[in-house]
Amino acid sequence: MAGPVQSIERAAAILRLLAQGSGRLGLGEVAAALGLAKGTAHGILRTLQSVDFVEQDKETGKYQLGAALLHLGTSYLDINELRSRSINWADALAARSGEAVRLGVPLEGKVLIVHHVFRPDDTFQTLDVGSLLPLHASALGKILLAYGTTPLEPVMEAEREGYTRHTLVSPQQLGRALGEIREAGWAAAVQEMIMGEADLAAPIRGQGGLVVGAIGVSGSVERLCDSKGRPNAPLVGLVRDAARAVSRDLGASRW
Amino acid sequence: MAGPVQSIERAAAILRLLAQGSGRLGLGEVAAALGLAKGTAHGILRTLQSVDFVEQDKETGKYQLGAALLHLGTSYLDINELRSRSINWADALAARSGEAVRLGVPLEGKVLIVHHVFRPDDTFQTLDVGSLLPLHASALGKILLAYGTTPLEPVMEAEREGYTRHTLVSPQQLGRALGEIREAGWAAAVQEMIMGEADLAAPIRGQGGLVVGAIGVSGSVERLCDSKGRPNAPLVGLVRDAARAVSRDLGASRW
Repeated sequence: MAGPVQSIERAAAILRLLAQGSGRLGLGEVAAALGLAKGTAHGILRTLQSVDFVEQDKETGKYQLGAALLHLGTSYLDINELRSRSINWADALAARSGEAVRLGVPLEGKVLIVHHVFRPDDTFQTLDVGSLLPLHASALGKILLAYGTTPLEPVMEAEREGYTRHTLVSPQQLGRALGEIREAGWAAAVQEMIMGEADLAAPIRGQGGLVVGAIGVSGSVERLCDSKGRPNAPLVGLVRDAARAVSRDLGASRW
Repeated sequence: MAGPVQSIERAAAILRLLAQGSGRLGLGEVAAALGLAKGTAHGILRTLQSVDFVEQDKETGKYQLGAALLHLGTSYLDINELRSRSINWADALAARSGEAVRLGVPLEGKVLIVHHVFRPDDTFQTLDVGSLLPLHASALGKILLAYGTTPLEPVMEAEREGYTRHTLVSPQQLGRALGEIREAGWAAAVQEMIMGEADLAAPIRGQGGLVVGAIGVSGSVERLCDSKGRPNAPLVGLVRDAARAVSRDLGASRW
């Protein structure tokens, strides 16, 4: 069996690097960040440029991500079965709950938002599709951790960022919360990433019953929770119903 | 100077292949489509899978695009200067014209939509960001061809798809149309891709005056054109004003 192709791994690392921060880096910066010789980094960057995965600014000579990635990214969305099976249920959940609905899958130790239905009102909202959320500070992420969709160890071993005073930063707190989520079958994150904001989520199961993603609602804590900060029970019911409906469409047997 | 890195070129070709059609291919299909030995294709696919650029379906063993591409694609949008400088002007153009606004750049002999503002009404619309339009059958594409933002030769030499009876399929027709566009400073495509639909566009210039993209409105031919199918002159004016405003923000001197 052939081993991994080193130049492709390096190319992927360069693209990830360019997806961070300002997104514009010179050859020397790319080479230094990845510990590559400049000649090696240059050969990879030129090849990535020839396939439109990278663009070079004519003025500054700096490299940035290229247009082909946008087309591949939206093609991923078109092909993604979890997303296509969820679209109608997500629309229905937004209409019934009056809240924004998001669908998450694991990527690189975070939650990748693959679908987002705006809250059905006329307020200004920005599309979260393609964004990454922290696993330990979002209900979507806690579902992925609780059901083993994404490995727990790296999250437990790393230092968890405390976004607010409610973020579960200690391994004990997080471990206990995940146990409760498995028992209850749903998750909440109330002001754990942003003060004033909450999200609720439930697991989506694929064929064989494995959890493949999470669906949930997000919005202001006043709307999602009661005066004591406890998630609104009818809303939790709607989220769980939607998750079950998507799971059945994906071929999971009833559970 | 190092040559291109063959394994990265092959990896990019595999990703492009997976972005087409059903988006799910077996190892044998990938190897055959690209003329690679199965072992070579397998090594590349496994590496792409290890960096989340490709996913393998557990049931069928087929490969499809992976989640990391979605994040890279939206990161491209966040970084893209043309798009960030255009957002406010595109919103203003949609508000003033009452039409949907789209921004296009060249990719792989097509127009890639990098920004899309919905028509400001409550009708159902789907986001075109990440989609590819034909160069010869859209106003956005004709701008990119007329001003040399994308090479003309491949389009002239290939057989151009006739989407409707109005599509400019002959090289003479297309060549004449591009000359008129350069003279007028704007382009229209009236029922050239879809009957009943039209789009109007104008060039966006970057530093040094080179055309780097196109901005335009699209919608039903009844709204965009008069009873003789001629584009509505005030609407053309709004599109050209928006294109000039973006160009100035990008550092193009007045022209």
